[in-house]
Amino acid sequence: MQKINVAIIGWGNVGRGCKRAISETKDMRLVGVVRRPVSLYKNKEELQDTNVVSDISELKDRPDVALLCVPSREVPEKIKEYHEQGICTVDSYDEHSEIYALRQEADITAKVEKCVSIISAGWDPGTDSIVRALMKMVSITGRTTTTFGGEEGGRSMGHTVAVKAIPGVLDAVSLTLANGRGQHKRRVYVVADKKVNTSQLEKQIKNDPYFVNDPTEVIFVKDINKYNTLHHEGEVERTAQEVAQKYQVSGVNPEFTANVMVAAARGAINLKNREAWGAYTLLELPLIDFLPGTTLKEKLEGY
Amino acid sequence: MQKINVAIIGWGNVGRGCKRAISETKDMRLVGVVRRPVSLYKNKEELQDTNVVSDISELKDRPDVALLCVPSREVPEKIKEYHEQGICTVDSYDEHSEIYALRQEADITAKVEKCVSIISAGWDPGTDSIVRALMKMVSITGRTTTTFGGEEGGRSMGHTVAVKAIPGVLDAVSLTLANGRGQHKRRVYVVADKKVNTSQLEKQIKNDPYFVNDPTEVIFVKDINKYNTLHHEGEVERTAQEVAQKYQVSGVNPEFTANVMVAAARGAINLKNREAWGAYTLLELPLIDFLPGTTLKEKLEGY
Repeated sequence: MQKINVAIIGWGNVGRGCKRAISETKDMRLVGVVRRPVSLYKNKEELQDTNVVSDISELKDRPDVALLCVPSREVPEKIKEYHEQGICTVDSYDEHSEIYALRQEADITAKVEKCVSIISAGWDPGTDSIVRALMKMVSITGRTTTTFGGEEGGRSMGHTVAVKAIPGVLDAVSLTLANGRGQHKRRVYVVADKKVNTSQLEKQIKNDPYFVNDPTEVIFVKDINKYNTLHHEGEVERTAQEVAQKYQVSGVNPEFTANVMVAAARGAINLKNREAWGAYTLLELPLIDFLPGTTLKEKLEGY
Repeated sequence: MQKINVAIIGWGNVGRGCKRAISETKDMRLVGVVRRPVSLYKNKEELQDTNVVSDISELKDRPDVALLCVPSREVPEKIKEYHEQGICTVDSYDEHSEIYALRQEADITAKVEKCVSIISAGWDPGTDSIVRALMKMVSITGRTTTTFGGEEGGRSMGHTVAVKAIPGVLDAVSLTLANGRGQHKRRVYVVADKKVNTSQLEKQIKNDPYFVNDPTEVIFVKDINKYNTLHHEGEVERTAQEVAQKYQVSGVNPEFTANVMVAAARGAINLKNREAWGAYTLLELPLIDFLPGTTLKEKLEGY
């Protein structure tokens, strides 16, 4: 069996998770990691068995698919960049209200360049989106609520990245806590640059698009390690008169997000092999395309 | 919008559930119920607003899709019968080990007759199969277990139908109870014909293919009503080092099974409209095909 050549773009927590996830598959192989040059020599040990380059063209083996493990805001531009080189992409783009627009935009370049992109293939949006669709099949009426973080709170990767990008923030972690009936609140721990006016910085965080719609508490701390975590958890619920459903997931957020991206990479290549070029969300693809295995019979085992 | 014409084949609990489910959709319309002639005049009230016939050819409006609400053992033959008339079918065939074979068999006649069949589109197999595939995306390693019935037990429709089909059984209900680590036991309440040797009947039940692999308790009772229930519940779990997942469903089993079948009917017609004739399991179709709505944008709302 010819393995799928995969490149990881970006070396944050999700990128690390993708390396582990690829190593757990039998049908993929990591051809390299693309990082910004500035960080080339950090964390050398964890990458000592891996080709690390600052541009994908430097990789010896051409990747079939690029896993975009970069902040959501950089995703649209990266998709275009890789499409132009005929490389499929997978991302976990998390700005819910922009997903349809991004899908439509990526669909155009994907079709022109004869490649495939899977958009928003993470946890939520991503597999939780599949769960919400599934729950609508099981229960025609009813209301679906999605709750993250429980009482203790869990790390939101998107929100953490958004806070860290604000000038004056040296380090940060943004926790999401359940706030009743599918509502949430945010708790942000921030190590601020000493030169910065913290009350102004607090306002800036609260007005960021990632935070402006939820009650947000900003706590300035000296050391982030005490508050830092990669754990997150969530629950999707739907209840109607005749049936109640609940789906729960908990664990190391970037690790399970990476698992989903790697499954989506398999899906992208299956589609490309069928010449079904274009951009897709997870709902637009048969789940069987994400599963390992070569024959239909094998994939339907345990159905 | 032109509505999808749906016929219900069989008037048991699932058939009744399908009538309710169709009435909750905006894109489908019930054109009639096909029943055995012998039962034509029972339960008149619940069918007084419905065309009831003993053969589908008697229906005034031709159905686009037939929901096969008959015992699993009758499904293969019914699929063929409706394919020959160019009518799509949906079933909730539950013999796990035979699903692949049935799909392959139905695929042939569906392609010849230019129609679409969705196989095993119930709860389990069905939406639980989707959940198991989803859980493999979220967690590459780990083991998935499916448990039904909890400690109290729930009604297995397939097992109940199987017991009722045994000569000498006047009425019955078969409960499935969790028995640890994805294992199950069965408890069967039976009203037996007085002329029957109950110890022989008990052996026959325990040796039936539906029961032979699980510890089974057979209890003979005078009146089934005290023990009868339509409730069932189940749990799919998968745990790996980095992530734990759980999906729970509980409620009126034939009602939520019917919801899934009706969603699958929509999927069948979407496929037929794309001329993608053939037979499919739920894993082979994009979930978006099962959702109500006309535009992609609308269907991706809340993604």
